[in-house]
Amino acid sequence: MTSIADRVLQGDVRAAARLMRDLDDAVPSARAALQELFPRTGRAFVVGLTGAPGAGKSSLTDRLVAHHRAAGKTVGVVAVDPTSPYTGGAILGDRIRMQDHALDPGVFIRSMATRGNLGGLSRATAGVVAVMDAMGKDVVVVETVGVGQDEIEVAALAHTVVVVAVPGLGDDVQAIKAGVLEIADVFAVNKADREGADRTVRDLQQMLELRRQTATRPGLEHDAAHELRGSPAWSPDDPAFWEPPIVKTVAVRDEGVGDLLAAIERHRQHLEATGQRRAREVARARAAFLALLRDRLLAGALERLAAEEGHLDALAARIADHVEDPFRLADELAARLGA
Amino acid sequence: MTSIADRVLQGDVRAAARLMRDLDDAVPSARAALQELFPRTGRAFVVGLTGAPGAGKSSLTDRLVAHHRAAGKTVGVVAVDPTSPYTGGAILGDRIRMQDHALDPGVFIRSMATRGNLGGLSRATAGVVAVMDAMGKDVVVVETVGVGQDEIEVAALAHTVVVVAVPGLGDDVQAIKAGVLEIADVFAVNKADREGADRTVRDLQQMLELRRQTATRPGLEHDAAHELRGSPAWSPDDPAFWEPPIVKTVAVRDEGVGDLLAAIERHRQHLEATGQRRAREVARARAAFLALLRDRLLAGALERLAAEEGHLDALAARIADHVEDPFRLADELAARLGA
Repeated sequence: MTSIADRVLQGDVRAAARLMRDLDDAVPSARAALQELFPRTGRAFVVGLTGAPGAGKSSLTDRLVAHHRAAGKTVGVVAVDPTSPYTGGAILGDRIRMQDHALDPGVFIRSMATRGNLGGLSRATAGVVAVMDAMGKDVVVVETVGVGQDEIEVAALAHTVVVVAVPGLGDDVQAIKAGVLEIADVFAVNKADREGADRTVRDLQQMLELRRQTATRPGLEHDAAHELRGSPAWSPDDPAFWEPPIVKTVAVRDEGVGDLLAAIERHRQHLEATGQRRAREVARARAAFLALLRDRLLAGALERLAAEEGHLDALAARIADHVEDPFRLADELAARLGA
Repeated sequence: MTSIADRVLQGDVRAAARLMRDLDDAVPSARAALQELFPRTGRAFVVGLTGAPGAGKSSLTDRLVAHHRAAGKTVGVVAVDPTSPYTGGAILGDRIRMQDHALDPGVFIRSMATRGNLGGLSRATAGVVAVMDAMGKDVVVVETVGVGQDEIEVAALAHTVVVVAVPGLGDDVQAIKAGVLEIADVFAVNKADREGADRTVRDLQQMLELRRQTATRPGLEHDAAHELRGSPAWSPDDPAFWEPPIVKTVAVRDEGVGDLLAAIERHRQHLEATGQRRAREVARARAAFLALLRDRLLAGALERLAAEEGHLDALAARIADHVEDPFRLADELAARLGA
């Protein structure tokens, strides 16, 4: 019998779609398929696209896909929408626009439902990216909404992260931009025909200037971005230093998209010339391995727990009543398991 | 020597602040202090407050604190700001307003830096809530920005979750509202003096109507909200069913805040009358225990790994080069550890 992984490698789109759905639903058999695909992954260039709601990320993704296709490249798109984690992907909205590409066999689009995937969003997304990679897609675009820890983990899957800003957002949203400063490789100021676009560009320039000045502040090496993305160079004196370019775009009118692609390409070349592409891939491999190990250990422990101590829910009830101490329980169980 | 936990229980505010900082930084010794405090926790009523950037959550938190204080209750505030995960809490902004309460010994305010706490945001927040609980705070308000998976995990710490909406946000933000539908116990339409407030109320009413109609859709029991919050009743026929009230507020003018508090209080009574308060606490205890167990197992495995296989980074490099398979490595190591 041909495995689902074999069928994916033979270009069977329905098999790929099924595997991706299984990854999104955390179906256990999907893990074996990913393992089978693993030797065939690692070739796609992964672009992350993130920003606040309303920034026009989907339109920009749509245009990036069109430009890549015009250049003869095949493209995968993973749309991560953590803003609707419970709807099972029912909210279509922007996704509908992508239908332009629905009949193009060189494009594969997948929306992550994220439902039932609590705490595993970044893992499921990594799996879907791996499937597209194994399918031979030249470029995979991962589009995420907002910037929380999950989004940052998702962004860490990418070689190049594009942060999409828009003119005229309030102070709270400016704070979001500051939050993404450490993961941005390229800034796109989208809807740049709106009033205030130049101010948004200047704000970003100021933030980058501030970043250069504080490049050596102590403790930065412990940052999450560091942990997930290798060791980026924050000091302008470092030859590996990269100053994120700021590109103005009007996605719905297809303006500036060529400039954005050129900026992404320059960043790709920078990553390769400085060895940072590999550093990012090693950091990602480390995180993926630890996640797999954690899963495997917990699954084993829960089996033992069920056999020895009865149902987990009964334990949880005793903890909720404060008659059992969860810290002691965890220590004891781990010790019995030899950990 | 008096332990830090003893000092917290004696009302030592500086000891509490230090412990919270250690929790935020994931300092190992903080775990022992939490364990010591555990028997003294479980009394505070925890209110979650979440919503899109710009919704005025901090102003509303500020007003809730003032009203609780006027009623003689002590209050803890945990401000989770995942929009600035790398700044070490440097972005003050809204926080400054809370300075009104800075000199009030009945109020304890803590901003979570979240830096260095990748994937552990909800855990660190749970720890800080536990410290405030052990300090004897009657009410703890957990304020979070946006709605990603992290925010939902943080919201799951709460007995009552208030989702703050505002008039006049775009379609993408409406999608956010749909995403929080399953965790909202109370809706506050803040900035209700703005144009479009009534439309926002109607939109929310329509979404709640849709939820009633789809209450029985299959598969809902696998939802993340279910996993984290016990077994809420989605069907209006269930006696435990709760229809989230929608309250209009203008936090900066202190309007509607009494109504919001009354709605929270009605929800608290509903939780207790239907046994759902306990169900939420059991679900939370279960998640907390599993997180502790996972940590403990992984720490043990990494120790063994370091002893047997050399540095984790070298393994990660071999995985990145695709000469080692992370799935096989994880399985083998777990098997050797007896899991």
